[in-house]
Amino acid sequence: MEKLSRNTRVSIITKILIENPNKIIGLNRFSELLNAAKSTISEDIVIVREALEKVSMGKVETIAGAAGGIKFIPIMGEKEIKEFLDELCVLASEEGRVMAGEFLYVTDIMFNPSIISKAAIILATYFYGKGADYVITVETKGIPLAYEVAKCLGVPMVTARRDSKVTEGSTVSINYVSGTSKRIQQMCLSRKSLKSGSKCIFIDDFMRGGGTANGIIDLLKEFDSELVGSGVLIDNKMSSNKVSKNYISLVDILAIDDKEGIKMVPSGSLI
Amino acid sequence: MEKLSRNTRVSIITKILIENPNKIIGLNRFSELLNAAKSTISEDIVIVREALEKVSMGKVETIAGAAGGIKFIPIMGEKEIKEFLDELCVLASEEGRVMAGEFLYVTDIMFNPSIISKAAIILATYFYGKGADYVITVETKGIPLAYEVAKCLGVPMVTARRDSKVTEGSTVSINYVSGTSKRIQQMCLSRKSLKSGSKCIFIDDFMRGGGTANGIIDLLKEFDSELVGSGVLIDNKMSSNKVSKNYISLVDILAIDDKEGIKMVPSGSLI
Repeated sequence: MEKLSRNTRVSIITKILIENPNKIIGLNRFSELLNAAKSTISEDIVIVREALEKVSMGKVETIAGAAGGIKFIPIMGEKEIKEFLDELCVLASEEGRVMAGEFLYVTDIMFNPSIISKAAIILATYFYGKGADYVITVETKGIPLAYEVAKCLGVPMVTARRDSKVTEGSTVSINYVSGTSKRIQQMCLSRKSLKSGSKCIFIDDFMRGGGTANGIIDLLKEFDSELVGSGVLIDNKMSSNKVSKNYISLVDILAIDDKEGIKMVPSGSLI
Repeated sequence: MEKLSRNTRVSIITKILIENPNKIIGLNRFSELLNAAKSTISEDIVIVREALEKVSMGKVETIAGAAGGIKFIPIMGEKEIKEFLDELCVLASEEGRVMAGEFLYVTDIMFNPSIISKAAIILATYFYGKGADYVITVETKGIPLAYEVAKCLGVPMVTARRDSKVTEGSTVSINYVSGTSKRIQQMCLSRKSLKSGSKCIFIDDFMRGGGTANGIIDLLKEFDSELVGSGVLIDNKMSSNKVSKNYISLVDILAIDDKEGIKMVPSGSLI
């Protein structure tokens, strides 16, 4: 391959980093792909690092040693976070979203890549130091958000299901009590899906009573595994009897009123 | 903000484009963010376009007119596609994946961001010209792949469910006959989730008999909407009585044998 200009290399390195968050990439890979000396690549990486930090678009970390290289950590600047959460509050409290039983229709939000990819970057920020091996969710609506958080953390996602499927092989199932309705519910996880002794982050669309989060803790115990963090898009603060308290949310519902509509604000759990 | 160097601008422009596939971004946005004249930004964009094309990592298209700007189209080079599909065949035909009834355990693959984000880029390539408004899937395992294809196409995803939920509001449900087992099954879609008169791409993990794809066509008819393309990760070629023929797959299962294991090859449906 011909020699590439610095500009060209910087663009290609940026793309590869962005598409592989939290994955260590050896300088050799760039050196071979871009037909340039490792010293040249190192200089390119300094440019990419400074560029992304200048606009608060992520960090590029250097990992020393034989298995070393660089990795990209997605982050979002404070100003962008504030703008995003304000927009999310407006969107999620639009008229017509309140369903029977004060449930909120947010399926369109949970399945919209433009929204969920940004929400995941903000949530992931709180879990970078936790040494998570997996992100876990319960089907269905939280799957894209859990998937995107897993991508940011550079780990796989696993999904607990409501009932066992032939395509999952042998499964472990547990019963739990939903925090709000006090009903007994079930969740299952395939034996093959999680390695024993893992650390997991639980991600979901909504937090109401917190029963599901407790169910996840019980389920993980069956795999000798541990919950090391929880995050949701929306916290319903109107559920007073929360059985789970240890989680991060992006936005909070304070009130749902027939006349005044939904009162939603950026979460106080974000520092 | 201080003046940025060309290298810095090129890195930031690359990042913004990669994170917003198939979304038109006006030059004004770059111009404001990077504190540079539009003519300067235009030159930067030429550099990014040429860099990504040089290594077959995507196209940057210019859209003229008042609502114009540039957009990034994710693509993967032929060599990378071949390598990826070969690796996928090895991974998906590993020992221990065959479940009762010749089902294949691929949940770990379907929920792995490193694999699914690449698979989606290859699938999306076949649907860029179709003018799709949504990507549709049926819960559960196909959701991350459908979500990533939707992201590539710059459109939202919708998910049909097995039964209706209180959080979905009023739903439309249809019955369909599964292509292989000939059993009657149900799928539901929230009235709010799909605009009438839409064009949709159906994405799923597996194609066996093709009954689900036909169910989706019936479901879309209830929304006066149309299926304009279908894609799956794995096509089971052993299902001889396929009721659906019009789809793309990435890899094909040719045989499952107790002694010789699974025979899987890159799909013949990819040109």
